[in-house]
Amino acid sequence: MKVKEYYKKLIGKAKELRFLDTISMLVGWDYEVNLPPKSVEQRSEQMSYISELSHRELTDSDNGQLIKQIMEHPDYETLTEREQRNVYIFKREYDRAIKLPVEFVKERAAARVKSIEIWKKAKKTDDFKLFLPALKKMFEFAKKHAEYLDPDAPVYDTLLDLYEPGMTVAQYNSIFSPLKEATVEILDKIVHAEKQPDTSILSRTVPKDIQEKLAHDVMPVIGYDLQRGRLDTAVHPFTTGFYDDVRITTRYMEDFWPGCFFAVLHEAGHAIYEQNQNPKWKYEPVGGYCSMGIHESQSRFHENTLGRSKEFWKFYYDKFKELTDEIFDDVAFDDFILAINKVEPSLIRVEADEVTYNLHIILRFELERDLFEGKIKIEDLADTWKDKMHDLLGIEVPNDTLGVLQDTHWAGGMFGYFPTYALGNVYAAQLMHKMAEDIPKWREELSTGNLDGIAKWLQKHVHETGDLYDAPVLIKKITGKEPSHIYLVEYFKEKYYPLYC
Amino acid sequence: MKVKEYYKKLIGKAKELRFLDTISMLVGWDYEVNLPPKSVEQRSEQMSYISELSHRELTDSDNGQLIKQIMEHPDYETLTEREQRNVYIFKREYDRAIKLPVEFVKERAAARVKSIEIWKKAKKTDDFKLFLPALKKMFEFAKKHAEYLDPDAPVYDTLLDLYEPGMTVAQYNSIFSPLKEATVEILDKIVHAEKQPDTSILSRTVPKDIQEKLAHDVMPVIGYDLQRGRLDTAVHPFTTGFYDDVRITTRYMEDFWPGCFFAVLHEAGHAIYEQNQNPKWKYEPVGGYCSMGIHESQSRFHENTLGRSKEFWKFYYDKFKELTDEIFDDVAFDDFILAINKVEPSLIRVEADEVTYNLHIILRFELERDLFEGKIKIEDLADTWKDKMHDLLGIEVPNDTLGVLQDTHWAGGMFGYFPTYALGNVYAAQLMHKMAEDIPKWREELSTGNLDGIAKWLQKHVHETGDLYDAPVLIKKITGKEPSHIYLVEYFKEKYYPLYC
Repeated sequence: MKVKEYYKKLIGKAKELRFLDTISMLVGWDYEVNLPPKSVEQRSEQMSYISELSHRELTDSDNGQLIKQIMEHPDYETLTEREQRNVYIFKREYDRAIKLPVEFVKERAAARVKSIEIWKKAKKTDDFKLFLPALKKMFEFAKKHAEYLDPDAPVYDTLLDLYEPGMTVAQYNSIFSPLKEATVEILDKIVHAEKQPDTSILSRTVPKDIQEKLAHDVMPVIGYDLQRGRLDTAVHPFTTGFYDDVRITTRYMEDFWPGCFFAVLHEAGHAIYEQNQNPKWKYEPVGGYCSMGIHESQSRFHENTLGRSKEFWKFYYDKFKELTDEIFDDVAFDDFILAINKVEPSLIRVEADEVTYNLHIILRFELERDLFEGKIKIEDLADTWKDKMHDLLGIEVPNDTLGVLQDTHWAGGMFGYFPTYALGNVYAAQLMHKMAEDIPKWREELSTGNLDGIAKWLQKHVHETGDLYDAPVLIKKITGKEPSHIYLVEYFKEKYYPLYC
Repeated sequence: MKVKEYYKKLIGKAKELRFLDTISMLVGWDYEVNLPPKSVEQRSEQMSYISELSHRELTDSDNGQLIKQIMEHPDYETLTEREQRNVYIFKREYDRAIKLPVEFVKERAAARVKSIEIWKKAKKTDDFKLFLPALKKMFEFAKKHAEYLDPDAPVYDTLLDLYEPGMTVAQYNSIFSPLKEATVEILDKIVHAEKQPDTSILSRTVPKDIQEKLAHDVMPVIGYDLQRGRLDTAVHPFTTGFYDDVRITTRYMEDFWPGCFFAVLHEAGHAIYEQNQNPKWKYEPVGGYCSMGIHESQSRFHENTLGRSKEFWKFYYDKFKELTDEIFDDVAFDDFILAINKVEPSLIRVEADEVTYNLHIILRFELERDLFEGKIKIEDLADTWKDKMHDLLGIEVPNDTLGVLQDTHWAGGMFGYFPTYALGNVYAAQLMHKMAEDIPKWREELSTGNLDGIAKWLQKHVHETGDLYDAPVLIKKITGKEPSHIYLVEYFKEKYYPLYC
């Protein structure tokens, strides 16, 4: 049989797997947004069934056969770059799945449910010791997972690659170490600046219906197409979906309007990335997002680079004032800009500002790295956390609820996930730097409310490229440079020094 | 291998199929309730994939093998009645699926989509001729479908059995013919009665939020558990789901509040039936609804037998008045009861009252029957419709939009479906008759707002029995009598003669 025929079959399989994926996303969305309180158990059974089914369909021995038939075919090289990449991604997912014994996957899934339950309790009661046995278990599962995938590679490298293909400990170190140093220095200047924002602006009461109106007004401004998406309420903001049906959620806190407004910009940034995938590649492996880091670069870009910029508010502040009735009538433009760009060391990652955020991530990265390299013990995690918070952010952690217990990721066994968040910021800045070269007047355009150039640039270079390359390769293709911290540091300095100093 | 082991495997397969079914229902619900306008095509692809997958999983040759291994096993008789029924239902579904060539199923699905589009246009423009070719095609598909399933049986019998297992043309004739005659007679008395309702009560403006409040108040009253369900808005009211997650929809017309109120009672009746399935049989074939007719008996019972009864309003009218502010303050109880029980020949089935409704169905049944028996031609359907409306309801049909084009069923190829609606009314009355023997004071209890006895009786006799028997057998088991029209006729006379005459 011709290589193209095997290839077509594989693409057919990929399409079915993508369908299962979109179904799973929809069921998950419904779980967060619509689930009747007493149907949690029934829904969990349904969701386990979908993951089992997906796993079964992915690990079907026919798939292994097809991959072989294509890759060992004498005409393999006649496949285009995109086609070869499709085979490569399919193979990567297949290998990752086939190497895990079914029993292991089941045991871990069951342990994860329990672990998250215990973590919730431990977080509520500030009891790290209660959580410790479950955490140890999830840590062991992660190690085992990495060993199944590649018994010869360093464990943490394998885990990092799971969330951000192509990234290693060494690469993260080379970006995060200088970023850490530079950030600490910048932070020091900002917090000691004489000028400080009046953050009471951020906690003026804005009724829910006004926040909703604001959200619906701003989403189309940055290019999120609500004809192919929707906004709903959930406990945590998130984005889910694919091409023509990409949905975001937010939550409304009447005494902290940025909690909705910037979450919506953030999630809409994710959503735009999904909506703008290349329709010609729909259902192909390359027709999906590149990596968590690139995904996060798009959300952060819209939330921070655009959404907290002076230029954005130059055209949007009047509209904002109009929609919020008279709530902000007395607030001067500069005071508003300073307030939404408040920088301050704080305890909770998800509430951190743009500058300190990466320090929260680097802390977690270093802890994970040192854990897997055996340099620290899991029993000491709570204390080491406190020490690091002191070193990096200069603040004391009063208890573990506000410290090591704040995030769900480790409880869910997701070691290696955190670094992608900061990588998103790094990528966003590097992309912005290149965009500024291509569109020198992008800030002027933005300040008049013209986002077309920006949107088209992102669409062409980032969104439509889908998963054609691993993220570091993509970044180099677009910007001509290896991924680096320098653009983010430059962005911080250019933005915050004039603001504060 | 022991018969029990084969059986367990089959039940495992049934459970997986049920999961797929619940997923399909959820995706369908989301389509009606939440779909972003421009994701129709993407969702359609997703839904086709789910049906293909379900079909593939059902027709898996392993299933045929298992069925054989069980039914031909020397110890087959050691299986309990329930277990044998599970095998029987599984086999019935398997046979129905395996007998249809995949190509046929695909062609029909594609033709259906087109047919429904054409029907929509034809209905809008009152153009039966435009619809005719598509209708003919769907009619041929239905014939072919029946022939694939059983080449020796009369076509319409096979189709009727698809929607209502165990029912034949002869059985429907034996119920519908006398029901028709009796109804025409009753109707004649009612429409010529001197006392007639003031139906302006029904079109008093009730704002949407009040209708919503009413709906949320009344649902728990009749036993619909909103901890395991939810109410949303959709173009047409419907019920979907399973056990702990059963959802209903309604729509709000501010100038016709019964359009929401009674639709909610109707759908909640369906929902209660699903919520009350026997949890011990969850995911087994018997742990689902018995038939469309039995399902409809539960919706009709709650909408009409309870919801339009004097006794229900004896305890609920004060609450109704309170929730609707002062809108009905001047309406006397008897006038209200008469208004919500208005009987009048009308053109549209879905708007018909309890008494004339069955005539709308019998008309459709007779047309389908005569079509498949070759007694009338499909070209003449629009005219025959008009003649029959004249004969049965004594009204002239001014155009086909209000006549043969009003329903979507035939456009979708669902010949044999309509009769189950009227059968639901027949069953509801027969069940009520038996319930009245078991709980002689049920109407007194109802009038004090005590619905416990009624709910428990339905749960025990109807809901928890699931699909253990075909509907006619179930009705005989519960009531001791074959399904018959006489209880419905009796119910009409006992209810409407005192009201009108």
